Amino acid sequence: MTINAERLWQNLEALSTFTDPDRPWTRRAFTERYQEGRDWLKRAMQTAGLTTRLDDAGNLIGTLPGSEPSLTPLVIGSHIDTVPSGGRYDGILGVLAGLEAVQSLQEAEVQLRHDVEVIDFLSEEPSEYGISCVGSRGMVGALSDEMLNFREPGGERLGDAIRRVGGNPDALSTPLRQQGDIAAFLELHIEQGRVLEENHVPIGVVSDIVGIHRYDIEVLGQADHAGTTPMELRRDALAEAAGLIKAIQREAQHQSVGDNYLVATVGRLNVFPNATNAIPERVEMVLEVRSNDAHLLQNFFPPILDQAKRNASTLGLDIIATPLSEGSPTPCADLIQSKVWEAAQATGLKAMSLTSGAGHDAVYMAKIAPTGMLFVPCHEGRSHCPEESITQQQATNGCQVIQEALKSLDNYLG
Amino acid sequence: MTINAERLWQNLEALSTFTDPDRPWTRRAFTERYQEGRDWLKRAMQTAGLTTRLDDAGNLIGTLPGSEPSLTPLVIGSHIDTVPSGGRYDGILGVLAGLEAVQSLQEAEVQLRHDVEVIDFLSEEPSEYGISCVGSRGMVGALSDEMLNFREPGGERLGDAIRRVGGNPDALSTPLRQQGDIAAFLELHIEQGRVLEENHVPIGVVSDIVGIHRYDIEVLGQADHAGTTPMELRRDALAEAAGLIKAIQREAQHQSVGDNYLVATVGRLNVFPNATNAIPERVEMVLEVRSNDAHLLQNFFPPILDQAKRNASTLGLDIIATPLSEGSPTPCADLIQSKVWEAAQATGLKAMSLTSGAGHDAVYMAKIAPTGMLFVPCHEGRSHCPEESITQQQATNGCQVIQEALKSLDNYLG
Repeated sequence: MTINAERLWQNLEALSTFTDPDRPWTRRAFTERYQEGRDWLKRAMQTAGLTTRLDDAGNLIGTLPGSEPSLTPLVIGSHIDTVPSGGRYDGILGVLAGLEAVQSLQEAEVQLRHDVEVIDFLSEEPSEYGISCVGSRGMVGALSDEMLNFREPGGERLGDAIRRVGGNPDALSTPLRQQGDIAAFLELHIEQGRVLEENHVPIGVVSDIVGIHRYDIEVLGQADHAGTTPMELRRDALAEAAGLIKAIQREAQHQSVGDNYLVATVGRLNVFPNATNAIPERVEMVLEVRSNDAHLLQNFFPPILDQAKRNASTLGLDIIATPLSEGSPTPCADLIQSKVWEAAQATGLKAMSLTSGAGHDAVYMAKIAPTGMLFVPCHEGRSHCPEESITQQQATNGCQVIQEALKSLDNYLG
Repeated sequence: MTINAERLWQNLEALSTFTDPDRPWTRRAFTERYQEGRDWLKRAMQTAGLTTRLDDAGNLIGTLPGSEPSLTPLVIGSHIDTVPSGGRYDGILGVLAGLEAVQSLQEAEVQLRHDVEVIDFLSEEPSEYGISCVGSRGMVGALSDEMLNFREPGGERLGDAIRRVGGNPDALSTPLRQQGDIAAFLELHIEQGRVLEENHVPIGVVSDIVGIHRYDIEVLGQADHAGTTPMELRRDALAEAAGLIKAIQREAQHQSVGDNYLVATVGRLNVFPNATNAIPERVEMVLEVRSNDAHLLQNFFPPILDQAKRNASTLGLDIIATPLSEGSPTPCADLIQSKVWEAAQATGLKAMSLTSGAGHDAVYMAKIAPTGMLFVPCHEGRSHCPEESITQQQATNGCQVIQEALKSLDNYLG
């Protein structure tokens, strides 16, 4: 082992203690608690021999110089903010494992050719300002003026919040980093799913990150009396919605076989008037489709909707679907994938390839740099909740592989 | 025509004006508004030559003496309370048509052999005290001590509310009326459904009143991340609930053909956690089954539930159903049904037989007296809403038939 597993585990424990005391583990971006966590991290970076700075997008960057100043840096990053009540390891593992990988190299007097940066991206989780991945968007020029003007419920503009934590929103109309500025970007994260655990595999090599399409769906029927309206005279919006939900499930099961990753979920559904003795007049629901295949993603729902609309109209109902968002899949760079595979092998750890079903800062970094991700399992796939947990061994495995991959990329890349 | 159609229509208009001004047409039982409506009704009864009294259950009873004091009375009744925001005709039509039928007989100097009572039953609609049909339950001894102790949100006991409007709750432990005390009971009501309107038939002869079984259903799955959990690892409580809702609908459509009336409705459904990106962990819903056939009613849901539980358990989900209430169907007396049919024919009105899908005071009166109901159409089946409406002709038809049936029963019955 070439990392200090004990120190990594202690750092995870230490940083996770920066939490709102009444709802562990909460460290929301832009809060005082978050700033305390960042101060701790900045000191830890400096102790490890990294120079630290904040970029204009509010990202905290620790840099260890390499031996060849002409090379662009290798970058490892993730985030230390959390959702409310959720997660001791989501995000912070990627930052602290990056720090540990670099610190232990430094202690072993191994100097890489490239500079290495360890980045804590600002506000990756969905924020009170309405968007996620604030820092990584900002770094690559994907934070629009419109977004900078989003306000949290208290009225503060996102741009002003970025300034408050030390960034410079006025500088974000052009990308801070561009294609060619970064040699490779690598992010370690907990899986937030159960695939690795169910397969008893310690390392996941991420092949791609899903794109997400969301639709607002309204099923419109008629609110008749549940006692006096015979079955054949009904226009029951909930029964119709139920048929649509089953059709979506069947088709997603059908299309997700083989190499394609596709999941479709109706997670949110509300019935109106929602009374025991009234036939439902209206159902509102949100469908979320995620896939690593742009064609599948684009073509999944439209034919299901067409069929459902035809069925509904013969019964006097209507179905209206409005696209809410349409994000494309992000492939990971082949080079990084193969280097992570080799690193797992070199470390003696079994690996498997898998799609990331969740979004990450890596989605934005992939716009300007060869990008890869690796996953370690988390207990029962639980994430974004107080029960989220990993073992020390799982953290160690991830850190060891990321260090190995870093060395290998450092060797390989010009 | 042997009734005063204009007076009936004016009375309907006049009584409906006793409404909470900000939410027509609201006249909730036990309120000041309700008492004003009852005072108006009492005066109208007295003007028509009826003697009025309040019984111990708080029912307002107007009596016109017959020529043979030894005979038990013929009774016509319904209610003048409303649901919130709902209904100018639901209930009050039955009371005012009864009054008009009697008043016009009186004016034509037709004296029946039997006493005739016109009853305004106390609080038929679901009340703030948790039950409906307070007055008719009380009359037949079906208002238990437990029910009398139910409290409305403000804390008042139902028993005290009955006392407040002039009843005597202490006298309700024994029935006020028993088998043999009433020669026949007849209730005219709007259909609250669309069967008569769709069939262009002005008079419905009610064959029976549905029994109602209600079940609380919980579908228990697992709240995984909607992005990172492949389709085959999911335990999606909403998708499972959707399958159950469709199975209920299919089976109800299948069982409601022919003479059987059966309807099954999931009107109320809530999803937890109800978030776009979380697979639903739990669905709570209420199933209501109504039928005129006790066997069908009893045996409708259990086999569907068994099959659904088996399906669910193979996928790692569970379904728990708890019966909330189990009311039996109420057949209408053959004698009254045939007298109503004959009365419709005599009046030159087309009639059809149908099941009442809603509960009525007649359900309780049927426990002690030969009971029948007749329906007139209402616009689009709308009821319990401000839009509830009928035409003057529809009101006239119902009143004419109930008067005809009254005369015929008076002739026929000992």
